[in-house]
Amino acid sequence: MPGNGSLGAHPAHTVVLGIDPSLRGTGYGVVESRQRVIRAVAQGVVTCPTAWPRSRCLAQISVAMREVVRDHRPTVCVVEGLFYAQNLQTALAMGEARGASLAAVAEAGLEVYEIAPRKVKQAMVGHGAAQKLAVARMVQRRLELAETPAADAADALALALTYLQEQGRYLLSPLKRV
Amino acid sequence: MPGNGSLGAHPAHTVVLGIDPSLRGTGYGVVESRQRVIRAVAQGVVTCPTAWPRSRCLAQISVAMREVVRDHRPTVCVVEGLFYAQNLQTALAMGEARGASLAAVAEAGLEVYEIAPRKVKQAMVGHGAAQKLAVARMVQRRLELAETPAADAADALALALTYLQEQGRYLLSPLKRV
Repeated sequence: MPGNGSLGAHPAHTVVLGIDPSLRGTGYGVVESRQRVIRAVAQGVVTCPTAWPRSRCLAQISVAMREVVRDHRPTVCVVEGLFYAQNLQTALAMGEARGASLAAVAEAGLEVYEIAPRKVKQAMVGHGAAQKLAVARMVQRRLELAETPAADAADALALALTYLQEQGRYLLSPLKRV
Repeated sequence: MPGNGSLGAHPAHTVVLGIDPSLRGTGYGVVESRQRVIRAVAQGVVTCPTAWPRSRCLAQISVAMREVVRDHRPTVCVVEGLFYAQNLQTALAMGEARGASLAAVAEAGLEVYEIAPRKVKQAMVGHGAAQKLAVARMVQRRLELAETPAADAADALALALTYLQEQGRYLLSPLKRV
């Protein structure tokens, strides 16, 4: 097999952007897989003070995601799918943050996929009801990070890792493109 | 009073962008008020085929709103507030379309305000339970349009008109900035 050729369903080089969108604290994480070696390229949280009008937060999220894409050139984006919202207002606010993020990454030409939160937890910790901290610690371990990432960034990194893991399994269950 | 000076709460020249965001058909309308004379500057619907992935629609909405802002230089944007959604999935999709729209207009520096749908109907037709067509016809009449605008564009124009009407009333009830 050639060293840097395509491995079919498991390409030799993939850069994945995971996003966990939220109005006041959107987590993101960029994970690169090269020759099956995985490493974290970037991670962080886009924080917006509660004093800001919502529309300013949305602009900030959009700008930040555009910068991440420009700086790290991911080709694929992964967000949570089928998640839970307490009520319509929460769902609306979550939707707004998603819309601001996904508009920016889709405009840059990335394909966007959804993975259910339960599936992410299962892929990371082995069971679907794992606590946030358990996920963050497993993300830290898998990516050999010096510190446990912030919860929102950890969720985003976990999405990217799960995507790569699913790709490695030759997509027995195809991911949902959105 | 100077001819083109400021009239305090009712500025001599205002350009308002109304948006009625939705994933497959985002309506927009730009209304200009100059010396208390009101006219429609632009209107339309950003349609996205159902075959498109959602993220592509969001990018399209964002691009279209950026173009409208660039072409017509509105300084204020108005969207519906406190609306009704049938379920969480609908609220999420509506939120996504809002997020894509508002990120674009807020990034361009516009202030964004919300007006409740009931208030728009009341301002346009005189009662809060008016039918869509009645609103569209009143929008047509007030703006002296040759044709009845498409429903989604009419809703957006109605939002812009209601904003200007509220401004004219010197904001007895302040609008909610988002």
